[in-house]
Order: sequence, then C-alpha cells, then structure tokens
Amino acid sequence: MAISNIRYGEGVTKEIGMDLQNLGARRVCVMTDKNLSKLPPVNAVLNSLAKYGINFQIYDNVRVEPTDQSFLDAIRFAKKGEFDAYVAVGGGSVIDTCKAANLYAASPTSEFLDYVNAPIGKGKPVTVPLKPLIAVPTTSGTGSETTGVAIFDFKELKVKTGIASRAIKPTLGIIDPLHTLSMPERIVANSGFDVLCHALESYTALPYNMRSPCPSNPINRPAYQGSNPVSDVWALHALRIVAKYLKRAIRNPEDREARANMHLASAFAGIGFGNAGVHLCHGMSYPISGLVKTYKPKDYNVDHSLVPHGLSVVLTSPAVFAFTAQIHPERHLEAAEILGADIRTARIKDAGFILADTLRKFLFDLNVDDGLAAIGYSKADIPALVKGTLPQERVTKLSPRPQTEEDLSALFEASMKLY
Amino acid sequence: MAISNIRYGEGVTKEIGMDLQNLGARRVCVMTDKNLSKLPPVNAVLNSLAKYGINFQIYDNVRVEPTDQSFLDAIRFAKKGEFDAYVAVGGGSVIDTCKAANLYAASPTSEFLDYVNAPIGKGKPVTVPLKPLIAVPTTSGTGSETTGVAIFDFKELKVKTGIASRAIKPTLGIIDPLHTLSMPERIVANSGFDVLCHALESYTALPYNMRSPCPSNPINRPAYQGSNPVSDVWALHALRIVAKYLKRAIRNPEDREARANMHLASAFAGIGFGNAGVHLCHGMSYPISGLVKTYKPKDYNVDHSLVPHGLSVVLTSPAVFAFTAQIHPERHLEAAEILGADIRTARIKDAGFILADTLRKFLFDLNVDDGLAAIGYSKADIPALVKGTLPQERVTKLSPRPQTEEDLSALFEASMKLY
Repeated sequence: MAISNIRYGEGVTKEIGMDLQNLGARRVCVMTDKNLSKLPPVNAVLNSLAKYGINFQIYDNVRVEPTDQSFLDAIRFAKKGEFDAYVAVGGGSVIDTCKAANLYAASPTSEFLDYVNAPIGKGKPVTVPLKPLIAVPTTSGTGSETTGVAIFDFKELKVKTGIASRAIKPTLGIIDPLHTLSMPERIVANSGFDVLCHALESYTALPYNMRSPCPSNPINRPAYQGSNPVSDVWALHALRIVAKYLKRAIRNPEDREARANMHLASAFAGIGFGNAGVHLCHGMSYPISGLVKTYKPKDYNVDHSLVPHGLSVVLTSPAVFAFTAQIHPERHLEAAEILGADIRTARIKDAGFILADTLRKFLFDLNVDDGLAAIGYSKADIPALVKGTLPQERVTKLSPRPQTEEDLSALFEASMKLY
Repeated sequence: MAISNIRYGEGVTKEIGMDLQNLGARRVCVMTDKNLSKLPPVNAVLNSLAKYGINFQIYDNVRVEPTDQSFLDAIRFAKKGEFDAYVAVGGGSVIDTCKAANLYAASPTSEFLDYVNAPIGKGKPVTVPLKPLIAVPTTSGTGSETTGVAIFDFKELKVKTGIASRAIKPTLGIIDPLHTLSMPERIVANSGFDVLCHALESYTALPYNMRSPCPSNPINRPAYQGSNPVSDVWALHALRIVAKYLKRAIRNPEDREARANMHLASAFAGIGFGNAGVHLCHGMSYPISGLVKTYKPKDYNVDHSLVPHGLSVVLTSPAVFAFTAQIHPERHLEAAEILGADIRTARIKDAGFILADTLRKFLFDLNVDDGLAAIGYSKADIPALVKGTLPQERVTKLSPRPQTEEDLSALFEASMKLY
C-alpha cells in the first residue's frame, strides 16, 4: 500500500504558496464552494498564494453532494483554465470535485463515463499524468485528502457512484485544525459519523487474503484491498479518537483539542479505508442520498434537498454490524468496547447486537434523526433503495458476509427506526 | 509525511518478477550477501525472475555492517552494470548498500562524500532520478525497506555514518514472513532490539513542533522530523508487537505467528522512525559498532569482528531512557507499561527508572550480553566513544533532552554493566 503525504499543524495552510512555488506552479485553480469562499480557510489559502506571487483562478461553484452535472461544470472550468496545479479547499464534495476536474482536464479526449466505476461507468484505468493537487480539508469526515476516490450523484440513475484510482489521490493533504473552528455543529456530527463508519467498515471488511478472484498481476489489485494489518492500525486508532473526542467536538466549537483530534482522525481513517475499503454502510448510503425527497438538514446552507453523506452512512450502521458480526465477531466486540460498551461478561455470539446497541446509544446521545423514517423514507421505498445498492458492488463485495437482495431489504427495514 | 509502499504476505516474493516486468525492467541488479545467496529468500527471488524472463546479475559481496569501502565496491558494480532496477534481498546491510549503489550509479559525477551526512560528508540534497529499488528484508529489525537511510562504517574515522534522503527510499518493500524462518536465534534477537529502539526512540524523540530552527520552506524539512501524531501511531503499535512477540520469535523458529508479526513490526517501526527519527541509543551506537575490538557475536557467520547493530543500540537503552525521561515522563511510563511493567502505583518522577528497569529485565530474560564491558569495552574507551558520538548530531539533536559531553560520558559509563 502507498499512503498520501499529509502535513499536520495549526496554521500550516500558510505554507501553501511555498508548496506551489516548490512545485513550479504558475497557473493554479483554487476550488471551493460558495459558503466557504467567504470563510477563514479560503482566506488563509488566498493570502498565502498572494504572498508568494502565485497566479490563481477561483472556482467556487462546487455543489455540496456533487452530481455528474456539477462535476462536468468543474471539469469545463479546469479544461479552459489550463492549470498546472490545483488546490481544493473544502469538505469531501470540494476535494472530490477537484480530483475529477484534474483527471478529465488531463485526459481531454475521455468521455465522462470512461473513468466512472463499473458497472455504471467503464472503470478504465488512469494512465495519463495528472497535475499536482493539494487538498485542504475543512470538515473532519471524508478523509478525501488521503484517498483516490471521488463520489458523485448520478442523476439519471438517482444513485451515487464515483471514480476510484490511486492516480487521483492528492499530492499533499494539509490538515490544519484551525479550519475546523468554523464548522457548525451538525457538520461536525455528520462528518464525524463518516469517520466512525470508515473506521468500523474498514476494520470489519473482508480480509485482504480472502478476496477472490486474486488478480494474476499485483498491478491489477483494486484500490480497496480488504482489511489488512496496515489498515487495521489506522482503523483502530481512528476509532479510539472518535470514541474520545467526537462528542466533545460536536458540543463545543471552542474545544480545540477535540476538533484537532477529529481532524486528524478523519485523515487517519481515510488512510485506513482508502486501502482496505468500506462495505455495507457505504454501499447502502448511496441510494439513501441519491433518492432524497425533501429532507433539508440543519446547519447546511444549500438550496436543494440532501442527506449529508455521514448521516446516510451511519443510519444503517446498527443493522449492518448486527448482520456482519457472525464473521469476525471478536472484531465487532472490540469495536463496541472501544466505543464504550462493557464487554466483560459479553458472549461472543452477541457481538453484533452489542455493537449495534452501542451505536444506537451513541447516536441517540448525539440527537441523530431516528432512522430512515425520520429523513423521509417509508417501507414503500425499500425496493428502490435495494435497487440502488446493487450497482455498488465495488464496496458491497467487501462485506465480510455476502448478502442477498432479501438481506439488503431487511437491513433497510431494520434501519427505518433506531431508538 | 510520505510512506513507502509495502506488500505483506507469506509467499508474496514470488510476484517480484511481475513487479519488475510492470516497471519495464530489462537489466536488474540483485544484491545480497554470501550467506544469504544460498538461502531460500534469494532462491525465491531468482525463481520469480527466471519465471518472468527478467535478466539479472547478482552481487553477493555485501559486507555485514558495511563500510565505505564495501559501499564503493557495490557502487562500482552498479555503475558498470547499467541496471534499470535493483532488488535487495537481505537485512539492513544489504538494503542500505543497494540504496547507495543505486544513488551513486545514478549520479556518476558525484564524489562519495557528496551525499554523506554532514558534518562528516557534504550532505548534498539528491536531485538526480534514481532507478526503482525493491527491498526484500530477511531480518526483522532495520525497517530499511521503508526508510531513506543507508548506514555504513567510515573506516578512516572509525565511526558509523550514513546517507539520509527520501530519494533513496525503496520503491516497494516486500514483507514476506517466510523469509524469517531461516533466521538464527541471535539474529532474531538483535534485529528485534533494533525494532524496540526504533519504537522507543521515535516515540520519545523531540516533538516535531519543538525542533529549531524551523526551516523557512517546507521542502527543507529534514527526513527526521521529530515525534508527531503519525509516527506515534506506528511507534506504539510496533512496541506492542515487540512486547507480545519478540521473546516468542527468538525462542522458537517454528512460531510463524511471532516471526510474521516481528517482520511486520520492523516495517511499522521503520515507517515511524523514518519519519520521526531516532536519538541517543542510535547516536551512541555508531561508535560502539565502529570501535569494535575483537567481539564476534554468536550466529553471525562473518570473518571480521562486529557488534551487531541491534545489540549496539540496545545496550545503552536503560541509561538513555533514564536520562531522557524528565522530558515527557508520561510517554516513558506508557512505554514501560506496554513492555510489561505494573505502573498502577508508579510515580511520574520515577518514569525513567521504571522504563530502564523494565528494559534491563527484558534484556536479562533474553540472555543479552551484560553491557558494554561484555563486548570488550572498558572505562578507558569512554572518551573515544564520546568523540565518536559527537558527529552524530543528525540524530542526537532529536533527543528530547540536550546532552553535554559529560552527559554522554556518564551514559556510556552507566551502560558498561546492566544487571
């Protein structure tokens, strides 16, 4: 496995102009979204660029929870600008959009579906050289600054899918905890749930030596290799940070220790899942986001309905881990213990229920919507949710336990109400 | 920080021919030493190269604990061979020699001292492109497969020094636990002590944000950055593996679980210290090795006196951590607990003594030579040992506690006898 470059520390964003100078960049594209464009993280980047005399253009039209159309808009801007470096300042939506813009600008004859994951797209390998991309995350969830994944909503099919290739991994991730101080409460919570699920899913994913078929050449190994001794280190470490700091980070914007630790945990979990992969919570989350009806979450200043990614992932987590625990129950129990369960008298066969209960209690304490019903879904939606999950086999096949359509149906049903 | 590629698994060495094909290699240099050249790890590599039709030449003249002269011999071979890729199969001596050969063959007009660490050499930055190097470690200690460091004995000055640059970091490290099964007992022990000290030193090194002067440009940061939240994860994880598995791995060559875990711990600790750095145990070890008199360790089949690197490092560890613990005593106490100490009633001001005692007990149980006196040194040698430590400021300055010549003298004296 290869791991991205990251740089960590309060205020390290101010070096970004020097980094771009070191890269020999002369025309830089700064990507962000409309809300962020007036906030301190973008200011810090622009001040540094000005200080080091770096020419740049700003694209602030990134859509929160991007779509194929919003990706294409950014790609058009990137192609026209002929940039020699990119800086993405934002959450996963911004960083993912910037990865796609960099990729397609470097590959001008490609059709959009060429690089999109099969079976929705053609899943072609990336062989063109990309420009350097520096990612400056402003949320603490996606870990996108450390991964080779870019996710979007494919409007025609009403489903989320993405592009996955080591080639689109950022050149450098700047983990500057100062940027977390402007995050509203629910964004801290929802992005934190993404970290929680990255850690839990990558720790419980199908082990790397049990995937099949085994590619005949190591070069053909997928980005998501299954759980392994290296990703396990990151997953467990990130989970411990979540257990210790997520509630504090949500409750108090001034708790710099908690917010800094969650910012780092997001990158750590990203390194883990970017190598091991995720499975059912993520696979099932894509139709939950893609089929959104009228839900508008608190603290998100957007003009469209959306289910924040972290929320769409975490709502099925109790059902998912109750389902997967029959494989590697000891890992499920270990995760429950890290999250605060007393497992001294626990029976190993109850591992799934114990982890599920621990997660429910964790979510209840954090005042999370009571299941899929609370964000607008009913039993009648389950067939569409299942249908939207089936094309996500890139991740669902990493579930330690194989699942039928009936299983998926039952998992969605069990996630309608949590408390 | 950037982290090397590693691949882990029993038997993964058999893919190396395919890796070289993927790299487009046509003339490969395989480096090893005379003992290893007849053993299974080298056979596994050569069989894979033959299977995939890769042309290669073998250099098996690597010296265990290499010198400037043995580096130069390997460099001459590399220059003459005009290789387009390198494979190093062996312990740290082999991998380090191969890094140097690759570097100087790619930089034919350079003088040998150009890239050697200042103040002994000129410490010039590496700007030439190197050929791919795949490292296949056969010991479990050095972590050289994950680092940009190559260490040798500079005969003229009777001191160890080295080359340190991210540019010489191997392209890929193949961590194949099968190779550990042929390791003799003392080699498992001594290489394991190197892992132990990598973990302890990098965890207690001067923190990354307390180094000074702070380079004005991030590109000028040294390879060794001080302890930081990323290297801490690796150091602690490696230390836990050492505590659980090192004794088992030494005692029983058939304990595949223990040997596999130590093989992985070596790479993990390498990722940690390759980023954070090491400090006094390593800095003081170079003269301990360099000034060797007549000591010939058990299980090393060589025709010259030598102090194995891991042994030279660990013998001062009780004295060193008793000395450094006044800075970050809680980290010293945490390390002692991981290594088995009961710290429930410990006082924080005793942290250094507790860790020192824990280390002494650990070494006694493993039947390690009783201090520097047991490997041929006496009080009369201390001035020379101190003098040999002074040029190692690249690492000694990472000690959390600054040290005078008198301090070094006292540390050597306290290390003459351990039990």
